[in-house]
Amino acid sequence: MRLFSEETVAAACAANNVADLASASIGEVLLVAQWLERTTGIPFVRMDQGSPGLPANRYGIEAEKRALDAGVGAKYPPADGVPELKEAASRFVKAFIDVDISPRSCVPTTGSVAASFGAFAACCQRIPGKDKVLFIDPGFPIQKAQLRILGIEWKAFDIYPYRGAEKLRPKLEEMLADGDVAAIIYSNPNNPAWTCLEEDELKVIGELATLCDVVVIEDLAYFGMDYRRDLGHPFVPPFVPTVARYTDNYILMLTSSKIFSYAGQRMALACISDSLFVKQYPALAARYKDSGVFGQTMVASILYMITSGCTTSTQYGYAEMMRLSCDGTIDFISDTRDYERRAARVKDIFTRHGFHIVYDMDVTQKVGDGFFFSLGYGNMSSAELVPALMAYGVSCISLATTGSRQEGVRGCVSLLHEDLFPLLEERMAMFEQDNPK
Amino acid sequence: MRLFSEETVAAACAANNVADLASASIGEVLLVAQWLERTTGIPFVRMDQGSPGLPANRYGIEAEKRALDAGVGAKYPPADGVPELKEAASRFVKAFIDVDISPRSCVPTTGSVAASFGAFAACCQRIPGKDKVLFIDPGFPIQKAQLRILGIEWKAFDIYPYRGAEKLRPKLEEMLADGDVAAIIYSNPNNPAWTCLEEDELKVIGELATLCDVVVIEDLAYFGMDYRRDLGHPFVPPFVPTVARYTDNYILMLTSSKIFSYAGQRMALACISDSLFVKQYPALAARYKDSGVFGQTMVASILYMITSGCTTSTQYGYAEMMRLSCDGTIDFISDTRDYERRAARVKDIFTRHGFHIVYDMDVTQKVGDGFFFSLGYGNMSSAELVPALMAYGVSCISLATTGSRQEGVRGCVSLLHEDLFPLLEERMAMFEQDNPK
Repeated sequence: MRLFSEETVAAACAANNVADLASASIGEVLLVAQWLERTTGIPFVRMDQGSPGLPANRYGIEAEKRALDAGVGAKYPPADGVPELKEAASRFVKAFIDVDISPRSCVPTTGSVAASFGAFAACCQRIPGKDKVLFIDPGFPIQKAQLRILGIEWKAFDIYPYRGAEKLRPKLEEMLADGDVAAIIYSNPNNPAWTCLEEDELKVIGELATLCDVVVIEDLAYFGMDYRRDLGHPFVPPFVPTVARYTDNYILMLTSSKIFSYAGQRMALACISDSLFVKQYPALAARYKDSGVFGQTMVASILYMITSGCTTSTQYGYAEMMRLSCDGTIDFISDTRDYERRAARVKDIFTRHGFHIVYDMDVTQKVGDGFFFSLGYGNMSSAELVPALMAYGVSCISLATTGSRQEGVRGCVSLLHEDLFPLLEERMAMFEQDNPK
Repeated sequence: MRLFSEETVAAACAANNVADLASASIGEVLLVAQWLERTTGIPFVRMDQGSPGLPANRYGIEAEKRALDAGVGAKYPPADGVPELKEAASRFVKAFIDVDISPRSCVPTTGSVAASFGAFAACCQRIPGKDKVLFIDPGFPIQKAQLRILGIEWKAFDIYPYRGAEKLRPKLEEMLADGDVAAIIYSNPNNPAWTCLEEDELKVIGELATLCDVVVIEDLAYFGMDYRRDLGHPFVPPFVPTVARYTDNYILMLTSSKIFSYAGQRMALACISDSLFVKQYPALAARYKDSGVFGQTMVASILYMITSGCTTSTQYGYAEMMRLSCDGTIDFISDTRDYERRAARVKDIFTRHGFHIVYDMDVTQKVGDGFFFSLGYGNMSSAELVPALMAYGVSCISLATTGSRQEGVRGCVSLLHEDLFPLLEERMAMFEQDNPK
C-alpha cells in the first residue's frame, strides 16, 4: 500500500509550484519531499540531492579558522587565487592524476559551477562560429541550465549505446562534423549513472578534441571515488583516469564538495592545460579588450567579473586539505568509502525487489558502488517511476532530466543512513507487491 | 624630479602586458605599481585599488568560526541563502534605510559583482526588445565588463553636467526614450567620484523607472559612508538615501566588503523589491523553463546556476554583523570613519600643490571626504595624469575608464597610512615644481 495518495502528492506539488515530477529538477523534488515529510510526519528516504552526507574535513575547517584569525577576511583575494592553493593544486594534480599543470593554470572558483560557467563562456567565445557545447550524457542538468543564461546552444547524446572506443569514435565524429562544437563536457565518474569512462574511450575523446580544436571540460567532482580501484595513494599508480593524457585541450574541474565533504563552503578549481592557457584568440581580445590569451581572459575578464575571486579563508582550507592529501595525512578515498558500502546495501534492497540497475556496465566491467546509481523497474518509464517511488516515500530524479534516453531514475546515497535501510526494505517490498511486473 | 624615468615606467608596463596606462584597469595599474615597487625598492603611494585598509570585523570572524565548528561546511547552502542571513538583512534594511523588504527577497551573492551579474541577466532577459543597461556614470568599470560576458549592450552618460532634478530629468528621458533600457545602474555614494545623489535626483530616477518599466540596480557598496551626515543609528533618522523610496522597480546591492572590511570573504546581498520579486515574465519562463517569476528565476535559474549558493560560514558571519549593527553593538560608521580623516589629509596635500577636486559638488553641498576622491591638475588630460603621477610613485586610475567625460584620476584612501603622508607631501611638491601650470 502506498504511503501517500495521489491527491497528497499532487497537493505537495501544487504547494511548491512543481508542475510535473517527471521533469522536476533536484531542487523541486527536494521541496516536494520535504513538504510531504513536514506535513504528514512520515520520514522520507531522500535519494534526490547529492549533498555530502559526511562531516566536512576537519583539517580544512581548522585551516580556515587560522586564516580568519590571521586576517585574510579584509583584503580582496588575488583574481587567480592565493598562491598557497595554486601550489597545492598543482602538486595534487601531479600526485593523484600524474599530470603536470603549473600553479599559474590552477584557478580557484566558487564551486565547479562557476568553473564550468566561466569555461563555457571562454570556450564558446574564442573562435567565431565555433560556439556550441557537446554534452556526453547523462549529465548534470545545471550545466545545461548555465548555457541558457549565456544564450549558448548545445548538442547532446546518451553514451549508453556507444560505450567502447569502436562505437564512441564514429558517434563523436558525427557530433563534431559540423565544426561548431567549442567544448565537450562530461563527468567521470558519471553523475548520474556512476559509469566510468575507460582509457580507450578517454583516448578517443582526447584525440578528437585535438583534431577538431575542441576543449574538453572534464568534471572530476567524484575524484578518485571509483572504489573498484585504489586511487588514493599520492605519487603512486594507479592514477585517476583523465582525458588530459590524450589532449592538450582540456580544463579539469576539481571541487572540494564531495572528496572533502566541503560543499557548504563553495570551493573548486579550474585546472587549465598549460598549453591552452597561453593560446591567444583574437575573438577574445576583441570582445574583452584584453590580451585574448585564453587563461588570462578566463581569469581576469570572465571569472573575476563574476565573483571577484573566491572566499579567501576557504582557499586556505582547500590548500591545506590538498597539501595533506599529497603528504598522505588525509586519505580522502577512505574518508568517503562509506558511500560505497551504502550503495551496495541500497542497490541490494532495490534489486531484491524487482528493480534493475539501468547503467550497469562499463565497457569491460560492472559499474561500481558509489555516490550515485541508476534504477529502473520493469517497463515503467522515467516519468512513471519518479511519482511511483514518491508515493512510497522515496525521492529521486528522473534520468530524463539528465539527458539519458533510458527509462529510470537517479538515486544518491549521500543522505541515506543505517536507520533508513529497514524502512526502505519494507517500502520496496510493498512497492513490489503493489506493482507486479 | 620624477622618481621613475619614462623608460622605467615603460618597462614596468611591458613586463606586465599593460598596453596603455591611460586606459589601464585597476588590476593593471596595481601590477605596474607593484612591479616598480619590487624592482626599485621605492615605496609607492597606492591609490589604485579600493580594497579595505582596515581589519575585518571581528564579530563576523568569530561567527564564521562558530559556524565552521558547527559543521556548516558539509552541506550545500539553500539556494536563496541561510534563513539567519535573510532575516538579518531584512531587519538591517529596515533599520538603516527604513525600507521594507521581506527576508525572502534578500538573497546572498558571492560579492556584489555576482549580484549585478545575475541582475543584469534577469533584467535584460525579462522583456523582449528591452535589453540594454543604462549607466549613470562615472561608475565601476567591472559592471560594464560583466555585460561583455553576457553580450548585453549598454548606454551611459556622465552625470557631471546633469546634477539636480531639473537637468537630470530631461537627460534621463532622452536616454530612456527608445524603450530599450531594461535597467539603470549607479553607485551611491559614487565610485569613483564620491558624489551622492540627492533626494530630488533619486525621486526623478525612481519616477522614470516606474514610468518606463526599468529596474534600478542601486549599488550601496559604501553604505552610509557619506560621513557628512550621521547615518549609523539603527531605526533612527536620517536614513540612507535610496531610490527604493520612489519606485518599486529596484534591486539594492549591499556588500559586506567595505562597511565591515570583509572583501576577502566575498559576501553581499541582492535585496529585491518585493513587488518586483513576484512579477511574472513570460520571456523568463520560456528561456528558463521555470515559473518566470522574477525573484525565483533570478535566484534558482540564474544565481544558483553560477555559484550554487554562497560560502555558508560567511553567510553566518554577515548575518551576525548585520544583527549586531541593528542592535547597536557594531557601529560600522565609526568603524570606517578613518577613511574620512585620511581623505581630508590627502585632499589637502594634493590641493595645496595645485591639484583640484574634479567632482567637487553635489547639487546643494560640497562633496564629502570618504573612500574615493577625484583629482585633476591644470589642463592635464586623464591620459596624461595617470603616467605623470606614476612617475612620482603615486598609482591611481584614469577617470576615463569609469565613464567620466572629465579630465582627471580616481584616488582611493584605503591603502594610505599615516607614514605615507610625508612622502606624498614631498612628492607632490616635486610634481608641482616640475609641472608648472
